[in-house]
Amino acid sequence: MDIGIIGSGRVAQTLATKLLELGNRVTISSRDTTKAKDLGDWGTIPSAEAFAAAQRKLGWEAAAGSFADAAAHGEVVINATAGGHSLNALQAAGADNLAGKILVDIANPLDFSQGMPPTLLFCNTESLGERVQAAFPDARVVKSLNTVSAQVMVDPRQLTEPTAMFVSGNDQAAKDWVHRELLESWFGWEQVLDLGDLTGARGQEMWMPLWLRVMGAAGTAAFNLRIVAST
Amino acid sequence: MDIGIIGSGRVAQTLATKLLELGNRVTISSRDTTKAKDLGDWGTIPSAEAFAAAQRKLGWEAAAGSFADAAAHGEVVINATAGGHSLNALQAAGADNLAGKILVDIANPLDFSQGMPPTLLFCNTESLGERVQAAFPDARVVKSLNTVSAQVMVDPRQLTEPTAMFVSGNDQAAKDWVHRELLESWFGWEQVLDLGDLTGARGQEMWMPLWLRVMGAAGTAAFNLRIVAST
Repeated sequence: MDIGIIGSGRVAQTLATKLLELGNRVTISSRDTTKAKDLGDWGTIPSAEAFAAAQRKLGWEAAAGSFADAAAHGEVVINATAGGHSLNALQAAGADNLAGKILVDIANPLDFSQGMPPTLLFCNTESLGERVQAAFPDARVVKSLNTVSAQVMVDPRQLTEPTAMFVSGNDQAAKDWVHRELLESWFGWEQVLDLGDLTGARGQEMWMPLWLRVMGAAGTAAFNLRIVAST
Repeated sequence: MDIGIIGSGRVAQTLATKLLELGNRVTISSRDTTKAKDLGDWGTIPSAEAFAAAQRKLGWEAAAGSFADAAAHGEVVINATAGGHSLNALQAAGADNLAGKILVDIANPLDFSQGMPPTLLFCNTESLGERVQAAFPDARVVKSLNTVSAQVMVDPRQLTEPTAMFVSGNDQAAKDWVHRELLESWFGWEQVLDLGDLTGARGQEMWMPLWLRVMGAAGTAAFNLRIVAST
C-alpha cells in the first residue's frame, strides 16, 4: 500500500521503517525538503540507517519529500509531526491531498515551553484529533498510537503481555481499517479498544501526563497499559 | 486506627465498610449531618446495609457526623467527596482538624454541568490534589485511589491480574504510609507506583476521561490498568 507520513523525526522514521519492512511504499516528509530528500544528512538522527537500509532492500527510492508529496502519495496518511506543529504541517500537505483518505493522527499536543515535564497545549473540552478533523472535514481522521512510544507503536509484542491500544474517529470504516489492518494485522496489537467518536481523542491525549510520570517511575519508555477486568 | 472520611456517598460508604472490616474506627460525614447521623434513612444508597452491619459487628457506634467531626476523629483523613465540592467540604472540616494529618485525596474534579461524559473542572497545569494542599498547607496530602471505581479501590484482587495504583505527594513519609499500609497491606494492591511530588496528581486526575471511555467500551467499571514493560 502507498503510505504518506507527515513528519521526518524519530517517530516518523520508526513507523516508516516498519511499514517498509511490511512491504508498503512509504514517503516520509519534512518542512525542510532539502533535509528530507538527502537522507545522507540524517546521520545524527536515530534509525536513519535502518530506514535507508529498508529502502534499499525494497528498492523504494522516492521515500522522502515535502508534506504535500507525502500526502499526495499516500492512500493512507499518518500525522507523525509534533502536535504543536501538526495543523501547520497538514495545511502545507494540502486539504485536497487529504480528502477522502484515512488520516491516522498519532500526535500529542505537547507544550514544552514551560519546561519539563511538558503540559498539553489544549485538552479536556477539545483535542488535537478533533482540531485536525475540523480543519480537514473531508479527511477520515482516526486517533491512535499516540499513547505509546514509537518503538512500542510498531512492536507491541516486545512487551511481556498484550497491552491496550485505542482508536477513536467519526468514520467507522476508517477506524475499522486502522483497528484490524494497521494495528492488529500489521503491528501485532492484541487488545484494541474502540472508544467511539473522535471526542475519544481527548482521553487518548490526556493520558500523556500520566504516561510521562509512569515513564519516570519505571525508568523506561518501553511500557504500556493493559486493561484488566474482573472475571 | 481512627479514620475520618469526608463524604457519605457511595465511595465513602464503600471505603468505610472495608476500613471497618479491617478493624479501624471510622467516621463518615456529610454536609447534611441530619442525614449522616441517621443511617436508617440511607436505605436507598448502595451498601448502606453493609456499612451498618460492619458497624454492629465491631460495636462502633459514633460512625457518622459532620465534616469537622470526621476530620477531628481521624488520625488519617480521606477526602471522598465529589471533586467539585471537595474544597468547601474540607473548609467545613477545618484546617486545624487536618493539620499534621495524612489527608488522602481520592476525588476527581469532574464537571457534569456540560452533560455526559463529564469533563474536568481544571487540569493540565493544576489539579485538585495540588489545590487541596495549597488550601491546607499543614495537611500531608497524598493523591491516590482516584483512578478506579470504589469497588476496585478496596478490592483490587477481584480483577484477574495485579493492576496499577499511583501515589503522589510532597510528604514522603505520608506517601509511604499510603503506599505500604493503606494500599498494599490493607487493600491488597500489588503494583503501586510512586509518581513523585503532588504535581503527579495532574496525571492521575487526567486519566479520568480515558477511564470513562474505556468503561464505555468495556461495559463495566470493574477494571483497571496494569503497567506492562519489556523484559
